[in-house]
Amino acid sequence: MRPTQELLAAMTLEEKAAICAGLNMWMTKGFEQHGIPALQMYDGTNGIRKTNSNEEMGITGENIPATCYPTGSAIGSSWNTDLLQELGVALGVEGREMEVDLLLGPGINMKRTPLGGRNFEYYSEDPFLTGELGAAFINGLQSQGVGASLKHFAGNNQEFEKIVTSSEIDERTLREIYLAAFERIVKKANPWTIMCSYNLLNGSYTSENEHLLNDILREEWGYEGVVISDWTAVNDRIRGLAAGLDLEMPGPAYYNTKAIVKAVQEGKLDESVVDKSAGRIIELVRKVKEANVESAPANVDYHELARRAAAESIVLLKNDNSILPLDSEKMSKMAVIGKFAKQPRIQGAGSARVTPTRVDIPWDELKNIVGDKVDLVYADGYPQDDRIDEQMIQESAALAASADVAVLFVGQPEYVESEMHDLETIELPLHQQKLIKAVTEVQPHCIVVTSSGSALAMNSWIQYVPGVLHSWLTGQGSGKAIADILFGRVNPSGKLSETFPVKLSDNPAHMRIRGENGKLYYREGLSIGYRYYDRKELAPQFPFGHGLSYTTFAYSDLKAVQQGEHVNVTFFVENTGTMFGKEVVQLYIHDEECTWNRPQKELKAFTKIALAPGEKQQVHFVLEERDFAYYNTKYNKWVAETGYFQIVIGSSSRDIRLRERIHCDFGLEPISFHKFSLLNDWINTPKAKTIFEAYLAEMNKHVSEQVILDDVFIGFWGDFPAIKIFQMFGQTWLIDRSPDDVIAEMIAEFER
Amino acid sequence: MRPTQELLAAMTLEEKAAICAGLNMWMTKGFEQHGIPALQMYDGTNGIRKTNSNEEMGITGENIPATCYPTGSAIGSSWNTDLLQELGVALGVEGREMEVDLLLGPGINMKRTPLGGRNFEYYSEDPFLTGELGAAFINGLQSQGVGASLKHFAGNNQEFEKIVTSSEIDERTLREIYLAAFERIVKKANPWTIMCSYNLLNGSYTSENEHLLNDILREEWGYEGVVISDWTAVNDRIRGLAAGLDLEMPGPAYYNTKAIVKAVQEGKLDESVVDKSAGRIIELVRKVKEANVESAPANVDYHELARRAAAESIVLLKNDNSILPLDSEKMSKMAVIGKFAKQPRIQGAGSARVTPTRVDIPWDELKNIVGDKVDLVYADGYPQDDRIDEQMIQESAALAASADVAVLFVGQPEYVESEMHDLETIELPLHQQKLIKAVTEVQPHCIVVTSSGSALAMNSWIQYVPGVLHSWLTGQGSGKAIADILFGRVNPSGKLSETFPVKLSDNPAHMRIRGENGKLYYREGLSIGYRYYDRKELAPQFPFGHGLSYTTFAYSDLKAVQQGEHVNVTFFVENTGTMFGKEVVQLYIHDEECTWNRPQKELKAFTKIALAPGEKQQVHFVLEERDFAYYNTKYNKWVAETGYFQIVIGSSSRDIRLRERIHCDFGLEPISFHKFSLLNDWINTPKAKTIFEAYLAEMNKHVSEQVILDDVFIGFWGDFPAIKIFQMFGQTWLIDRSPDDVIAEMIAEFER
Repeated sequence: MRPTQELLAAMTLEEKAAICAGLNMWMTKGFEQHGIPALQMYDGTNGIRKTNSNEEMGITGENIPATCYPTGSAIGSSWNTDLLQELGVALGVEGREMEVDLLLGPGINMKRTPLGGRNFEYYSEDPFLTGELGAAFINGLQSQGVGASLKHFAGNNQEFEKIVTSSEIDERTLREIYLAAFERIVKKANPWTIMCSYNLLNGSYTSENEHLLNDILREEWGYEGVVISDWTAVNDRIRGLAAGLDLEMPGPAYYNTKAIVKAVQEGKLDESVVDKSAGRIIELVRKVKEANVESAPANVDYHELARRAAAESIVLLKNDNSILPLDSEKMSKMAVIGKFAKQPRIQGAGSARVTPTRVDIPWDELKNIVGDKVDLVYADGYPQDDRIDEQMIQESAALAASADVAVLFVGQPEYVESEMHDLETIELPLHQQKLIKAVTEVQPHCIVVTSSGSALAMNSWIQYVPGVLHSWLTGQGSGKAIADILFGRVNPSGKLSETFPVKLSDNPAHMRIRGENGKLYYREGLSIGYRYYDRKELAPQFPFGHGLSYTTFAYSDLKAVQQGEHVNVTFFVENTGTMFGKEVVQLYIHDEECTWNRPQKELKAFTKIALAPGEKQQVHFVLEERDFAYYNTKYNKWVAETGYFQIVIGSSSRDIRLRERIHCDFGLEPISFHKFSLLNDWINTPKAKTIFEAYLAEMNKHVSEQVILDDVFIGFWGDFPAIKIFQMFGQTWLIDRSPDDVIAEMIAEFER
Repeated sequence: MRPTQELLAAMTLEEKAAICAGLNMWMTKGFEQHGIPALQMYDGTNGIRKTNSNEEMGITGENIPATCYPTGSAIGSSWNTDLLQELGVALGVEGREMEVDLLLGPGINMKRTPLGGRNFEYYSEDPFLTGELGAAFINGLQSQGVGASLKHFAGNNQEFEKIVTSSEIDERTLREIYLAAFERIVKKANPWTIMCSYNLLNGSYTSENEHLLNDILREEWGYEGVVISDWTAVNDRIRGLAAGLDLEMPGPAYYNTKAIVKAVQEGKLDESVVDKSAGRIIELVRKVKEANVESAPANVDYHELARRAAAESIVLLKNDNSILPLDSEKMSKMAVIGKFAKQPRIQGAGSARVTPTRVDIPWDELKNIVGDKVDLVYADGYPQDDRIDEQMIQESAALAASADVAVLFVGQPEYVESEMHDLETIELPLHQQKLIKAVTEVQPHCIVVTSSGSALAMNSWIQYVPGVLHSWLTGQGSGKAIADILFGRVNPSGKLSETFPVKLSDNPAHMRIRGENGKLYYREGLSIGYRYYDRKELAPQFPFGHGLSYTTFAYSDLKAVQQGEHVNVTFFVENTGTMFGKEVVQLYIHDEECTWNRPQKELKAFTKIALAPGEKQQVHFVLEERDFAYYNTKYNKWVAETGYFQIVIGSSSRDIRLRERIHCDFGLEPISFHKFSLLNDWINTPKAKTIFEAYLAEMNKHVSEQVILDDVFIGFWGDFPAIKIFQMFGQTWLIDRSPDDVIAEMIAEFER
């Protein structure tokens, strides 16, 4: 391709406007006369959803088969950045095989509520974990010459009326929670495209939000890639183009091409704005078409990878009396109950739905493992619909009673988890709850395997069950992964990437995911996920970062030292059990002294380490100033305050193993005074105190109630602005001057 | 006095500007030449705080003695509007005796958090209860020719940096929670003055907030009285005057008088604005000076009233095994432990602090009751300061062990509850907690009497104590009231006007009472007090509306009928015990079907009824449409939606006795369509559906993926705006028209 500036110079205004919208549902426009080829892009959050026709949306039908990996919430629980990178590479390779130039993912929105209809697509409730995983995935994907589309930018965390709802998020919360993962990924992985969301953010559509697309994304983060609209998310195309929305999808959007040309001709839009977007799109085409793929692995075994990814994602929630792993030598009959054992749920619905190349069935995989030695028996367990079928429950219980152990496969029905629809409950269907109770009454050796893309409430039944495995929606390899973990062929190593609450109403966003009059206030602010449960001293069913192993890990020797701009943290982890296993070690920071409220702790580093029995390994994390910072809206920047912090090392967010107090020096913000500086501000700085005292002395000469700056006075009035002291007690002194005049003189004197 | 218009015409601009500020700390300016006398005003939330000099603030010293009644949080727990009216009358009579023209109260702000430093001055966490009590008080006060100053208007619910903090409250929350009591009182009692608060509200000082002072207070509510600044709350005097802030305090504020004159002369302020405020102030002077007091009671026994008010305010929180009332016949020795028994805390600190005329001492009153028959012994129990004194604890325990029963007087130390300072904890001091545990270990017959102006956390000790009486800060008559209740001479009848949480972090505003960068977000929105605990399904220590009695009450026969614009509710309450008693019956409304989120229930009526043993009485409440309404920010008005409601009758907010479902007809809002009306909106109205289908059919002629409006399609896309359906699927149809054009045509057709 010719250089972009040359191409822009050669193209007509109409052509440049036209390239800023797609050709159809899934392609950009190519311009043969200019040697610009078209690009093909497809949905692809946990696999490639390529439609049979480029004219069709194809959400409800079957598409071209592709590998179906674990969905976002599942893979988020792997906490394994190497795995995410490997998945990215594999999707890149498969994408190139399928002639896919751009994959419309990953989705990285924060899981604000377990009711969010697309939660299954997203990684976590924590922006750091999300950012690290997303960056690894994209680096892998793009290394194969397939571009990512980081979505949905930003502040879309529910499905209900998302297109007509403004997410009202204060700036600090936006920066620390809802934009933080985007920022991290933009800086660490430079996604070739970013997809705006459907919603409005603080009153302006994200497809035309200057603050979001220009001030933050382009100016602050330095992003130079292409911003794509979510499908039909364009509202006012001219405003969007001006804000930096490059590519409208789907196309051709003739009316908007005309509107752009007209706006330029009428002087309402500068042609350089069109050039910028068209230029970015041309650059994107160049990146894809001229990608230099050196390290493409040959013969990737996609299905094996899907199995491995599933195995890393599944979380062992509960394992009383080590009921797991099962031992086929020690049983003669095993009851498998629940339709999901034969028809597993491996993914959610909507644009993320992949037509899998093959699907592992748990029942088959269990049979493969136990062979003929164990009598495997099966019952459906529950009906297809919402009915409560007492007979099925009784039959299942009888079957379970006749066996040595019962494994129940339960979970959210397929129809409740889909793009466009939020969930209404996080409880299992009532029938399933009754089923679990009935089975456990007759069979104490009972294991429940749950499937869902989001957190489940379990408090109505979990106390009766010794073993619970959460299998998420783990893609086409999940059947074998579950079977392997149940029988100890794989040691589970997933950890929850989102809090499992005791009940829905414990969630901070409960009842606040439906907007009113088009506004949805993110009232919980920073208190999303574990940050909320910490602050409220509220025990979740299972905390963020929780996941059991068949082995045990010991932590020791934490050291944290500030060295210049970094803080070096080291400690040891040892496998003290008898089985090979992987442990996700988590580093949180607690700010002891922050001027503003901060969450009790925030995840700032993690790694997943593999240890043989008896093996001990040192973990080393390097923290940067930013890791200690919060977003200060007074200065509009990230501020790390000099003072005491705690380095908190946990095996989960509530299983803290090591803790070290450290004083960090990040310098100080300069002192300045303004009209409303408090009495305490004035008297806590020597120079300012001298000035204040001089003015007070002058005032005291003219008033009947003298102000004496003693402890009693300061104790009562300290948080009053100094100006108000003069206004309150100096009325008979302030004849020609106002209190404003006095303070202005004082400030001038301080600054002199 | 001459008519106001005549006076205004006779006064110079300088004089009119000058009357808009006070003369000194506590007076308005009089103008002898015009026959306008000066007014005297003093702090007076739970009694009159008249300083010895009109030049002095007088917060720390002693002032002129006056009756000290229960503080707001105490009297709020009486739930007795007749009593509030009587108190108002008594303060009016005493005020006139003391030459007080205006009483700077009552304070009616909502108790958003138990940490609020002025909580002791305020009535409740519920706006309806607050509004009813405040209106009764003001009607009583002003009937005696003494004006009230309803404060602090509005959105000031903490002390920390209140002067430099903007309370960020969304409009619906503002209307339903933070302004609702003000609105009720303005309409039911017409307070002669209203005092603005120190804080900013949504970015603008309440002393110059157009939306608050003009749009809402004057225009919507029709208020014609005087708005006074809190002391030094004036920021920009010109802007304040324009917004409707009439009187600046303290005065003389020469600089602002000059500024007003200058602004008028320079054409920046219309003289009519000055006339309006000056005119209102003159009208106020007339109201006070020409008050026609016909019904002034003679020889009010203030102290007896203070005792009676205290007795109605004290709440019996816990009474296991009917340990109360005590029977002096059944004991020979009683231990009284805790300094508050001899030095009771009867009020808070700051501008609300009254110099009482006399003070009942609990110890003396207990002695009076038991006479010589019981050996009363005493220990201080705890030191003056924060120390933990193990010896005092041991001595107290030994004393308690030697007696038949122990009564502990504990509570928040005096220095923690004051204007200007928020509390840091709602736990009793650690020493007191240890004291209670030590005493209960040796003496199971233990009663704890707590004193504090705000909710206390009790979970560290309450399980050991069979009897707990919360005495608030109940004024100079509290000593006798406590003694009378302990020995059953008075049957307790107070009910909590605020939720007592298990722990501080349960409170919805926990950690959110300190602003950041001058902004304090009221993130919990409508979920203040019991509304929050309901929504979160969270059990408080003691719920809103809770209070025990020495007798029992049975509820029966609830009937609710809509009759035209009213809903008539009747039911019966019977005293089924053996002692005369008073019961506070509470009516809450639950909206079953509201389009927007609403609190589970909202208090809409209450009454306190007195019943002899065996007596049965019918209660009759009349509810109005407004009682069923919420504030809808789409229409900017109160909307009661036709549909099902529940009338919920409780003895507390969590002790629900009766419940009745009722369908209410309040009409329907007209249907209209806009650019982003959802597909579901279009197809759920027959005429609109026909239009939509016609356009869809037209589109289908031009596209390859035909849209069929079946259940699957509607199920997925129903919450999508119809315009986006065309934008998504009609790209090859939309050549000359944009999706906007299509929707505009459809709307025009619908409206035709």
